[in-house]
Amino acid sequence: MPLDLLPVSAPATCCTPAASPAISEQDAVQLARTLKALADPARLRLLSLIAAQDGAEACVCDLIEPVGLSQPTVSHHLKVLTDAGLVTREKRGVWAWFALVPGALEQVTSHLGAHLTGRPA
Amino acid sequence: MPLDLLPVSAPATCCTPAASPAISEQDAVQLARTLKALADPARLRLLSLIAAQDGAEACVCDLIEPVGLSQPTVSHHLKVLTDAGLVTREKRGVWAWFALVPGALEQVTSHLGAHLTGRPA
Repeated sequence: MPLDLLPVSAPATCCTPAASPAISEQDAVQLARTLKALADPARLRLLSLIAAQDGAEACVCDLIEPVGLSQPTVSHHLKVLTDAGLVTREKRGVWAWFALVPGALEQVTSHLGAHLTGRPA
Repeated sequence: MPLDLLPVSAPATCCTPAASPAISEQDAVQLARTLKALADPARLRLLSLIAAQDGAEACVCDLIEPVGLSQPTVSHHLKVLTDAGLVTREKRGVWAWFALVPGALEQVTSHLGAHLTGRPA
């Protein structure tokens, strides 16, 4: 199409082109996966209990009573968090210990901030 | 139990009490609800497309093609985001426009940062 036939301005109520690049499809899939692991009240409480401990690590034995769930349920939630790369698991004696992965949650919040907060008009 | 029979220190590998308060049950439920609305690749892309526009608002007509989904599917995802308080919806002529709710996403990231990031030991 010759350049002079291209519309010179978009209609006032529609179709203004995006001003800056949106999140890529691949980044969106990855971020959604991590957010899905976070999107559960019990898992949020478990993460915050771990974060509240010195060194941001906690024995599973300290996590069961505060969240008020059975040990298998707590273990399931901790496995989801481990699989999502948000915590690591280490066996010490009879107990498993869980530690926050440094920077993992900061990466989530920085992605959310970078792509999903608006700028003033 | 007499005080002098209470254990004076916790076992070395277990049961250190939490150093600071964890997220409340109510806050965890609320935050999980919002994260669930965010935890979908198409919804993340829609939000980032809206955020990328001037004034952080977009006509639904501009959102369908970039995400490559049908209009009913896009409308469903936008309804989830609206119900979660992340965007507002306004009808202008034949099209619905969606705008980021100022501060909504920042509240999510600040909650995540406040409760879920570890401190150095």
